Amino acid sequence: MKRIFEVDPWKITTHTLNPEDKRLQESITSLGNEYMGMRGMFEETYSADSHQGIYLGGVWYPDKTRVGWWKNGYPEYFGKAINALNFTKMQIFVDGVEVDLAKQVPSDFELSLDMQKGLLTRTFTVLNVQITVERFISVAFKELAGMRFTFKAIDGQTHQLKLVSFIDADVVNEDSNYDEKFWQVLDKDSNLENSWLASQTIANNFGVPQFTVIAGQSFKGDFAANDFAVSDFAVNNTFIGELTATKPLTFEKRVIVTTSRDYASEAENIEANHRLVEKQANQSFTTLLDEHIAIWAQRWEKADVKIEGDEAAQQGIRFNLFQLFSTYYGEDARLNIGPKGFTGEKYGGATYWDTEAFAIPVYLAVTEPKVVKSLLKYRYQQLAGAYHNAQQQGLAGALYPMVTFDGIESHNEWEITFEEIHRNSTIAFAIYNYTKLTDDHTWEQNEGAEILVGIARFWADRVHYSKHSDAYMIHGVTGPNEYENNVNNNFYTNWMAKWVLEYTSRIWPNVSAAYAEKLAVSATELELWQKIIAKMWLPKVDVTDVDGVKRQVFLAQDGWLDKELIPVKDLPADNLPINQHWSWDRVLRSPYIKQSDTLHAMYYFPEAFTEQEKRDNYAFYEPFTVHESSLSPSVHAIIAADIQLEDKAVEFYERTARLDLDNYNNDTKDGLHITSMTGAWLAIVQGFAGMRVVDNQLTFKPFLPKKWTGYDFRMVYRGRVLDISVKPTGTKVTLLSGEDLKIMLDDEEILLTNS
Amino acid sequence: MKRIFEVDPWKITTHTLNPEDKRLQESITSLGNEYMGMRGMFEETYSADSHQGIYLGGVWYPDKTRVGWWKNGYPEYFGKAINALNFTKMQIFVDGVEVDLAKQVPSDFELSLDMQKGLLTRTFTVLNVQITVERFISVAFKELAGMRFTFKAIDGQTHQLKLVSFIDADVVNEDSNYDEKFWQVLDKDSNLENSWLASQTIANNFGVPQFTVIAGQSFKGDFAANDFAVSDFAVNNTFIGELTATKPLTFEKRVIVTTSRDYASEAENIEANHRLVEKQANQSFTTLLDEHIAIWAQRWEKADVKIEGDEAAQQGIRFNLFQLFSTYYGEDARLNIGPKGFTGEKYGGATYWDTEAFAIPVYLAVTEPKVVKSLLKYRYQQLAGAYHNAQQQGLAGALYPMVTFDGIESHNEWEITFEEIHRNSTIAFAIYNYTKLTDDHTWEQNEGAEILVGIARFWADRVHYSKHSDAYMIHGVTGPNEYENNVNNNFYTNWMAKWVLEYTSRIWPNVSAAYAEKLAVSATELELWQKIIAKMWLPKVDVTDVDGVKRQVFLAQDGWLDKELIPVKDLPADNLPINQHWSWDRVLRSPYIKQSDTLHAMYYFPEAFTEQEKRDNYAFYEPFTVHESSLSPSVHAIIAADIQLEDKAVEFYERTARLDLDNYNNDTKDGLHITSMTGAWLAIVQGFAGMRVVDNQLTFKPFLPKKWTGYDFRMVYRGRVLDISVKPTGTKVTLLSGEDLKIMLDDEEILLTNS
Repeated sequence: MKRIFEVDPWKITTHTLNPEDKRLQESITSLGNEYMGMRGMFEETYSADSHQGIYLGGVWYPDKTRVGWWKNGYPEYFGKAINALNFTKMQIFVDGVEVDLAKQVPSDFELSLDMQKGLLTRTFTVLNVQITVERFISVAFKELAGMRFTFKAIDGQTHQLKLVSFIDADVVNEDSNYDEKFWQVLDKDSNLENSWLASQTIANNFGVPQFTVIAGQSFKGDFAANDFAVSDFAVNNTFIGELTATKPLTFEKRVIVTTSRDYASEAENIEANHRLVEKQANQSFTTLLDEHIAIWAQRWEKADVKIEGDEAAQQGIRFNLFQLFSTYYGEDARLNIGPKGFTGEKYGGATYWDTEAFAIPVYLAVTEPKVVKSLLKYRYQQLAGAYHNAQQQGLAGALYPMVTFDGIESHNEWEITFEEIHRNSTIAFAIYNYTKLTDDHTWEQNEGAEILVGIARFWADRVHYSKHSDAYMIHGVTGPNEYENNVNNNFYTNWMAKWVLEYTSRIWPNVSAAYAEKLAVSATELELWQKIIAKMWLPKVDVTDVDGVKRQVFLAQDGWLDKELIPVKDLPADNLPINQHWSWDRVLRSPYIKQSDTLHAMYYFPEAFTEQEKRDNYAFYEPFTVHESSLSPSVHAIIAADIQLEDKAVEFYERTARLDLDNYNNDTKDGLHITSMTGAWLAIVQGFAGMRVVDNQLTFKPFLPKKWTGYDFRMVYRGRVLDISVKPTGTKVTLLSGEDLKIMLDDEEILLTNS
Repeated sequence: MKRIFEVDPWKITTHTLNPEDKRLQESITSLGNEYMGMRGMFEETYSADSHQGIYLGGVWYPDKTRVGWWKNGYPEYFGKAINALNFTKMQIFVDGVEVDLAKQVPSDFELSLDMQKGLLTRTFTVLNVQITVERFISVAFKELAGMRFTFKAIDGQTHQLKLVSFIDADVVNEDSNYDEKFWQVLDKDSNLENSWLASQTIANNFGVPQFTVIAGQSFKGDFAANDFAVSDFAVNNTFIGELTATKPLTFEKRVIVTTSRDYASEAENIEANHRLVEKQANQSFTTLLDEHIAIWAQRWEKADVKIEGDEAAQQGIRFNLFQLFSTYYGEDARLNIGPKGFTGEKYGGATYWDTEAFAIPVYLAVTEPKVVKSLLKYRYQQLAGAYHNAQQQGLAGALYPMVTFDGIESHNEWEITFEEIHRNSTIAFAIYNYTKLTDDHTWEQNEGAEILVGIARFWADRVHYSKHSDAYMIHGVTGPNEYENNVNNNFYTNWMAKWVLEYTSRIWPNVSAAYAEKLAVSATELELWQKIIAKMWLPKVDVTDVDGVKRQVFLAQDGWLDKELIPVKDLPADNLPINQHWSWDRVLRSPYIKQSDTLHAMYYFPEAFTEQEKRDNYAFYEPFTVHESSLSPSVHAIIAADIQLEDKAVEFYERTARLDLDNYNNDTKDGLHITSMTGAWLAIVQGFAGMRVVDNQLTFKPFLPKKWTGYDFRMVYRGRVLDISVKPTGTKVTLLSGEDLKIMLDDEEILLTNS
């Protein structure tokens, strides 16, 4: 745990530049607009350790798989959203000396991310010049990244400034499997006014398209164009200016990034890039920035959460929403939400089940339905890939991948790729969840049905009938608890498979005629599904919990009770986290649960389990849960709140609220835990406020954490925007816009009117 | 399956040179003398596909681990006996044209491996010259490789011959993980008479010693030295000769290979190499070859197996013994038996449990006890590594590695490295087996005891007590059946762990005073071992076999009976072998057994199980066994013979007898299955002849396979050499040398006298 930024409700500010924390600082000051994003590295030369990273949504490369011994069915590559060209790169010279904060100690330093505005500002003084850099990636003009440099002499003297601005395609991925370069330069040009460069991913043998990215830079401000150059992998423009004691100088670098994802040919791409460069040139920096800020304001209008009495918590929840929205806002249904967004290379910017499990539940409540609709469409477009994946395993139906860009599995460990198949059910859950929150059944009855039938057919083939136990079983899986591999009858996996078959059977009669004809689910098939539903292996067993209380719980997996059941609290403290201190062998044999597993179904379907079931399973399994996935605490916060363990709920919330701002897991330098950032919101809204849709009605059962004096959140619900304010004196729900609505609040129905 | 060599009792001969089968041909014509070995590649240039490979015992390199996602405890490297310098390399020019059998079609061609003599001979005619090449790696003079070339003009003309002979250090391993070179040239020199080169493995970060290999070449014969050269990675000598119609010309290339394993300094190594070059120079090729052949004769004297009525079987068993002895004959206790010996790169020439499980049982019967004693010493020398391996997993005691050169684990897949721990018990079994066959208890009471206590302490820590089932269990293992990973309570693993504790407890009172003091097994420890022995989880369950017969069997692993139990015979034929046709996921979930698993303990301890137990377990599990490990059929042959399923025993024997000669698994091109070559011998001697040591007495219960008219094998037993001859008329056991001996033959005691 390490906190390097100051606490502030809307800003992430530091006045310290510690080279040791440079990567951590860069991760936290990342910017993005779904179309592209970048880490918070400095524009000008910084010669000490830093991780330069600019990533473009959907621009990826199939990095050859690295694996010990090959196993049949392994994907041949691991897809990665690769570090694209470096278009922020600058050199700044003051009186002939190059500015480099690794070499010159600034006499003042401030780095500040304004979350309300989506603006990153840095001010520092070196060589008797105060330099301010403002940077934004426009959410109003997706191809635009704007940077503005302001120079002020602080010593009453005149200084000669020289600026060199680059588009540099000589970049690598730090995590490439074989230290390969993924880019080749296609075309480039430079003149005194501006320059551009087109870079293309190198050819691959896997049928993955080669992407072309073009960055064009243009400039405004008080400097005079002086020179330009083209080298093998870069283009640059040079500007000079005389900085007097009285007049600050400004310099604007504006970059337009276009990619082959949006244009049919290279010529069109180049033409578009030039056109957009011209378009933005007609607008002032202030106008461009204001348009960007206005969109951010609209987003906050629907989504803001206010916490009273805990400024650190306030900052945490806003940071999470800011970074989530920077990663994804549903503008392009071909994109999704990588676990680290645009902020690092781990997980390769690919799509995981995190999206449907954790992100969609948030987006459903804080954005218009079209945002989540884009995420649903994403999976629909990749249905062919899911069929391919199932076929690779010799199975019927559709198996959504663990890691993907195009629907084809690109993860390469058998215990995950082949076995962590519970992910498939979460794709179905997203359809269910969307329908429940929006009351829009059209997706479920059309494209959604096609996905559901594909997944249901997968499960119907993947289960097997055990004659010995007269039950349907699922062997050889890895559940959400990845500290078990290749287990039989993981409760969550079995329960969800059964649910998918139930849900698909239930919606089948209402599927549109066109889709019903296309999907042609036969009576025999429906019958088999019913048989599986009736005989799915989901045993309840009698146990004694760590406090000696007798309970009845779902068996987490075959044989779980035969483990050596020492609760986490009795482990020596220096053994934690076990994933850093124990061999994998010991982790696997232990009873320790990485993240919510048996409880995960209760998070998805709170109404499907009795309160006693929740209490029993929570009481029995939580003491063995190490929460070493950043996705675990929020689910536990929600369940704890559900069973009135309010202090526990708050405790879990605190483990997720400032995960990255406090570098809780000591790995934020590698990038932000974007999908885990949903956790704090889920804990507050689904946990503390008890938000559910029960019997087609929005309900709340709020409590106020003891440390807080109040909290207040906005929520989009079926065409309305609500404000929910929880105070010591009670809860007030206000309808901010939209039609009247009856909701349940603390088990009482109330009518919200738009007065 | 593909047979490219002719059937002959003592020779492996072909008259065909098919480029497609070149690698297969090279594997089968491999030569070795434990100290070094090589594939059967041609000496002269062959410009089509070929796999040049010369490997030296104990000369290895730690190739950086290639793995998907790192797991705690993974070894950082995978040890490999690396392709060393190419010292067979030649260029042959006839009238200025280079001989290259990839370009010139020979008008005759014969390649023949004489197994009685250990001599590889090749004759072919191109460019009007018949060329004969003889090659051997001396078993009498370990550092010596001899090659003799004989040239005959067949067209009555005179031909100008030029020969260039190389030592070439520019070699790579085909299987290197990152395409790295493992060698650097240290020193080299050449003159008109001879030349030498010293090559060293490059530095590594893993504390593995760097090895230096020196090859010195010298020459004899009818050619005149003409030139010599030194290049970056090679040295060479050039010879010329005029071949007339009447007089054949011969050319001898003799290579001496010395390594830093035998000399303290590079200077000593060079000095020794030069000295040995001189030493052999004083002897004729014939003398050197005869000494080599004489040693082979002594080996065959003790070990030969004669089969009457089946020449292919005869050839098969001799080929297996020949290749086994070429790989290992106990001369150097720092060496062991790689699964592919010196014949290929897969498995990296490292030590596996195959040695103790399959090779020692053969060597114990066909060589003097000192050979196996060397193998026992090997493990004793590596005990510190075994303690290290256990510690890496957070466990007490000693864990012998899956793959090693120095005792430290160097395999890199968790399901094997961490989980296939049954290997540990086989190290103990080897001590038991040696003692049983030799009646020499000194090892068991001293060094052996130290190994046993280390392994026993590992098991006592690795088991855990299940309160739920009131039993000791072993979770998270991979048994001998590697088509299951991370299972709980694999029968074989549990049974063997219990046996190790029993055996160690039993020998403990007899351990020598010095070792008893050193090992200090406490009363508490012995008590715990007894508790574990008493409550080890080894359930017997009621089942119905594929023929509908009710039986009681050991449960292969927790949950096994819940699998979908379709016998192998009911699988579509095109699904086999399943490891080539099924995804790993499907393989793991299936009931199909790769190799003997539950039956494996019955192979080790035939007396420990009742005949009914053998019948029940064989009948129940064999129908699910796919035998996709080359180590499986022999064990099944032995058990089948034991329960009088003689035809079945023969059927299994046939799957192992000519595994490589008939390229049974279609992978012999990668190298020979050296350790599996024990299978045919085991099937004949322990299977057909029923050889056992029961109650400290040698016993036989032979039967004669229907296809054969007789078989006869030699056996070393407690200072004697026996000949066992099985004919339709009965079995005759003859004492060839040593003291009188009472044995059991078909349940009758007979006295063998040395008359």
